[in-house]
Amino acid sequence: MEIFKQKIKNLTKNKKTIFALSIPLSKINEITNALLLVQSGKIIYTVQKKILPNYGVFDEKRYFSSTKIKTEYFNYRNKKIEFLICEDMWTKDFTKKKKEKLDLIVVINASPFEIGKFKLRQSHASKRAKYFKSSLVYVNLVGSQDDLIFDGGSFVMDKFGKIVIQEKFFEESETHFILDSKTKKKQIKKINKFENLYRALMLGLKNYMTNNGFRCAHLGLSGGIDSALTLAILADTIDSENIHSFYLPSKFSSNDSKKDAESLSKNVGIKISEISIEILRNTVIKHLNPIFKKFKEDVTEENIQSRLRGLILMALSNKLDSLLVTTGNKSELAVGYSTLYGDMCGGYSLLKDVYKTDVFELCRWRNKNTLSYFKVKRNNIIPEEILTKEPSAELKYNQKDSDLLPPYEILDKILSYLIDENRDVKFIIKKGFIKDDVMKIWKMIKNSEFKRYQSAIGPKVSKMSLSLDRRFPITNKFDL
Amino acid sequence: MEIFKQKIKNLTKNKKTIFALSIPLSKINEITNALLLVQSGKIIYTVQKKILPNYGVFDEKRYFSSTKIKTEYFNYRNKKIEFLICEDMWTKDFTKKKKEKLDLIVVINASPFEIGKFKLRQSHASKRAKYFKSSLVYVNLVGSQDDLIFDGGSFVMDKFGKIVIQEKFFEESETHFILDSKTKKKQIKKINKFENLYRALMLGLKNYMTNNGFRCAHLGLSGGIDSALTLAILADTIDSENIHSFYLPSKFSSNDSKKDAESLSKNVGIKISEISIEILRNTVIKHLNPIFKKFKEDVTEENIQSRLRGLILMALSNKLDSLLVTTGNKSELAVGYSTLYGDMCGGYSLLKDVYKTDVFELCRWRNKNTLSYFKVKRNNIIPEEILTKEPSAELKYNQKDSDLLPPYEILDKILSYLIDENRDVKFIIKKGFIKDDVMKIWKMIKNSEFKRYQSAIGPKVSKMSLSLDRRFPITNKFDL
Repeated sequence: MEIFKQKIKNLTKNKKTIFALSIPLSKINEITNALLLVQSGKIIYTVQKKILPNYGVFDEKRYFSSTKIKTEYFNYRNKKIEFLICEDMWTKDFTKKKKEKLDLIVVINASPFEIGKFKLRQSHASKRAKYFKSSLVYVNLVGSQDDLIFDGGSFVMDKFGKIVIQEKFFEESETHFILDSKTKKKQIKKINKFENLYRALMLGLKNYMTNNGFRCAHLGLSGGIDSALTLAILADTIDSENIHSFYLPSKFSSNDSKKDAESLSKNVGIKISEISIEILRNTVIKHLNPIFKKFKEDVTEENIQSRLRGLILMALSNKLDSLLVTTGNKSELAVGYSTLYGDMCGGYSLLKDVYKTDVFELCRWRNKNTLSYFKVKRNNIIPEEILTKEPSAELKYNQKDSDLLPPYEILDKILSYLIDENRDVKFIIKKGFIKDDVMKIWKMIKNSEFKRYQSAIGPKVSKMSLSLDRRFPITNKFDL
Repeated sequence: MEIFKQKIKNLTKNKKTIFALSIPLSKINEITNALLLVQSGKIIYTVQKKILPNYGVFDEKRYFSSTKIKTEYFNYRNKKIEFLICEDMWTKDFTKKKKEKLDLIVVINASPFEIGKFKLRQSHASKRAKYFKSSLVYVNLVGSQDDLIFDGGSFVMDKFGKIVIQEKFFEESETHFILDSKTKKKQIKKINKFENLYRALMLGLKNYMTNNGFRCAHLGLSGGIDSALTLAILADTIDSENIHSFYLPSKFSSNDSKKDAESLSKNVGIKISEISIEILRNTVIKHLNPIFKKFKEDVTEENIQSRLRGLILMALSNKLDSLLVTTGNKSELAVGYSTLYGDMCGGYSLLKDVYKTDVFELCRWRNKNTLSYFKVKRNNIIPEEILTKEPSAELKYNQKDSDLLPPYEILDKILSYLIDENRDVKFIIKKGFIKDDVMKIWKMIKNSEFKRYQSAIGPKVSKMSLSLDRRFPITNKFDL
């Protein structure tokens, strides 16, 4: 703490600018989440966080103490300014306060990205700006930490609760503005769900690699849509010479899969290498025959293939010092339609929080859009064949995902009710879904907790990701 | 809730006995952790938990609201009785209360086992009994839930804070006693650390298997001490015909390892099968040669062996519907001296929270003790050779754990400071450990968060297990 104070002093001395600094403040037996205003090497104002979020990905009550100290407004050149820390804005309690005119409200945030979150931020900010007839500055972190993505998108609101300055999403930016100047409302660009989602995944991936010291990344291409989208995002995000895709066929892989994987790689300008697993599969199956011959063929043989691919991709990760990017999606992971230590291998599970139907939508969106910040400068990078063929794990002949699962349009809706909205099975059946489907899916979710427990980390992009947000036990006998 | 109330009614009607029932109580927008007294189908008394633990493995503030309602004592036949729920006993706040004589304090608990925890329970209970000059009944759950073990050991204390009735640990039991009778203090059996630890591991394993529907378990025997202890515990816990051990040698495995694995299996009466991985190792290495020949041999080749073993053991898990028990210990897992998707494969990581030095102690203790509840009815089941040879992963010739790590006696002490006591490196260096050792180990801990993130679940037995207790980010640049 002392070293830190000295640092602040050195950095700010002789500067008239007031710096706002977010920092944990430690006192005897407690730490508060605080904001300091620093000028000329001195702390001139302190405000501590009052409301500590402890739901979803948040665990602030584990680490911080909340304060009940009423903070005086900061007075600067006869302007009354209120400083709030993140969650402190997410309450309606202010309507109980004496209504007084403020000149400025400043909210500092590390607000994790999720689809649709921006509207909520805007709505909370707007209510407060209007109530206090005050301008409001909403500042949000840009970056990521493990599974959390911080999407920036800071803004300035006028006292009517309208955004007058909108800063960039997913990248750092700075702006200067004069309070009370007659800032005309600029046209704010509408936010496209899939563009946002795509950029969030790009930012999460890039930051995870940078912060954990990976220059290279690689993945297994199956010819299916999940690995296709994963490669597209990779290729749009990092330099092509640092990406390597591998096609690892067995005798169950179709010729189309190979063709599709190759044309995708060509479209995005990424080298692809083929390493057949057929000889390894054969060797393992033969080797285990003395024990296995008494038993029927079952999912074991399928898992062996998936695990051999995992083994090769991890060997490549070790040898090339390259991040293996896991390609599974949220729908699969939710129902356990994936092989532990097989296709679940990897350091970063890029689509972990993206339902299969959204994987399709993202591919379609990307095929129609090439934005300035994409490294791949063309549309239609994902071959139409990948988008139109029926999903299959290709772990035995004529296998289709729909052999075991309802169509993804149905599955994802049921999953979204069960997971994202935390609804019970009765509610969903009332909505018109087939009872057997709903019960089966709920059971699959419960029975696959052990797989998710050991799954790789991946970016949260929905309001209920399958890791920090949703904490369910492996051992579970409860019913919904 | 209504169904539940009806159930209580039916179960208790026409019964004069008062039943104490632990239950979550839901009201609008909040759930409290509560205790009900039920008699003849009616709830006659309710008390809600006041202090919600939110540290270590506890996350009660996520789920429960605490109450500030002061509960009147329960009055029964002119006796004043106080009911407390678990953490409500773990505070000194009662000394601020008006000191009044109580007749009985009843504390209901689901207190997770950890080495040394019993003394703390006893100390808190004793202070309270003495302060209120009251008898005290401490009731604790027996069983487990995922990584938590509940060790029972309920007791009755007199008003002088002495235990007068001590119930069994690790198994259900019941007792009847008359308050105010002149119960003489019985001789309480001293608790042996290693007996307790051994039994905790047995209970955790047994419950995990039962509750998750596993009848059979298997493991890979390396000839080393971790898998030896794991097999000993398995063999003492479940029927021998439901256990299978596998020896999976490569060309780097020594003849001694085979001999040791075999004599261990013989000692505990468990069948052992040998499945060499050598042909598979060879095939994989040759298969990857076109890519790998440009590179030097490194940890990749070692990991391939470990992952082939994982692949075979998981195939056996799938085919035989058997729980693969992971054999790694806390020291290895802490520094990342283990292969992700290799020896880390498995459904239950039995020694996950047991340091290597304690693995040795447990083996020595078991060799000297055969207790009535052990399935294996003899001492000296772990061959002396396993206890005395130098630990080695045997993934290359002449490999020793000490090539990369300080001796386990040193390592475990440093780990215990860094992890269990959450000390900084400066403190540990001051204690006389070599700076380079301490810094290296701290770095290894930080750099292996990604492995632990994907590790199998295993029983918590220390005050700081590596899963729920200790929540560190994968992406970390901080220093201690």
